[in-house]
Amino acid sequence: MKEQFLLNYINKHISLTKEEEEILLSKITYKKYLKGQYLVQQGDVCKYEYFILSGCTKTFYMDNDGQEHIILFAIEDWWTSDMGSFIAQKPADYNVQCIENTELIQISYEANEELYILIPKLERFFRKIVERALVASQKRIVRNFSMSAKERYLIFKENYPKIEQRIPQYMVASYLGITKEFLSKIKSQLALE
Amino acid sequence: MKEQFLLNYINKHISLTKEEEEILLSKITYKKYLKGQYLVQQGDVCKYEYFILSGCTKTFYMDNDGQEHIILFAIEDWWTSDMGSFIAQKPADYNVQCIENTELIQISYEANEELYILIPKLERFFRKIVERALVASQKRIVRNFSMSAKERYLIFKENYPKIEQRIPQYMVASYLGITKEFLSKIKSQLALE
Repeated sequence: MKEQFLLNYINKHISLTKEEEEILLSKITYKKYLKGQYLVQQGDVCKYEYFILSGCTKTFYMDNDGQEHIILFAIEDWWTSDMGSFIAQKPADYNVQCIENTELIQISYEANEELYILIPKLERFFRKIVERALVASQKRIVRNFSMSAKERYLIFKENYPKIEQRIPQYMVASYLGITKEFLSKIKSQLALE
Repeated sequence: MKEQFLLNYINKHISLTKEEEEILLSKITYKKYLKGQYLVQQGDVCKYEYFILSGCTKTFYMDNDGQEHIILFAIEDWWTSDMGSFIAQKPADYNVQCIENTELIQISYEANEELYILIPKLERFFRKIVERALVASQKRIVRNFSMSAKERYLIFKENYPKIEQRIPQYMVASYLGITKEFLSKIKSQLALE
């Protein structure tokens, strides 16, 4: 049963009793999405948070000129959603789209709120997950200010070791905030070093 | 008693019993820092998280060229720390410095861990605080990619309505990732609109 993967993951961080595991299983849903499908669309309310079992998603903001700005990729064992939309149940600022066929566990807002009441120790689990996400997000702000595109590309490869072969280069460029052409120049330079 | 401000703030989000309030009070410390003093220094372990009662701090990263990159300001009713350093108790990536005389409540890492055990509902409180910080941080990434410096300056004024008169212009420029001269050009343009 695919839901077991989420239980294993959570049990690495906190200890659930058998009874709590059963409660959790009753509130979560396994789903498959196809490459190209959206988990969240900018302007809609994000109704779920997602734990990815396999596949890959990108979270991006589409600006008024139709340009796509990638905030993050998520792969196996990562959580994704539009957090601002999910916690306030208001329209999403971002899109979350599958860039591969993606298998995931989804938890609805209502189920999530019930789970916090039924299994209070999940508060601790999610607090820790969100703390780590905040640390990563702040690091990204600093890198964008203080590092060259080449340095940021090298850190991207380090942070997402398995991802570069799986996604189109223009997405890597968008994540780095540079053009595809500039990324390809950086890669040629690195090849010569 | 100054610690009461923190209790009032927490009680807006969760309900503490009298007994829990007493436990909390026994674990927190009121402190005054002078303008220029550091709460956290890059390279040291961040031992506390801070709730600001009055004053203002800046969190910044100093790069190898000695340039300062401001990640955030914090004022009354805000929390600050180097989160990555605090949660892992490893050397800090950032500095947190008082840019005014600052009064605050500090909670040590050890006290914080004890408090989560003694008052489990604090998990919920801090989860919510961190979720909101993550949403703000992701918005900042998107703005830096997709908006002009002028637009970002206007949003800065909206997000920190009381702060601009209180801090030097070069800090605002650093926060926006632009030069002081460019900021002053933007302000002259806006004055003409």
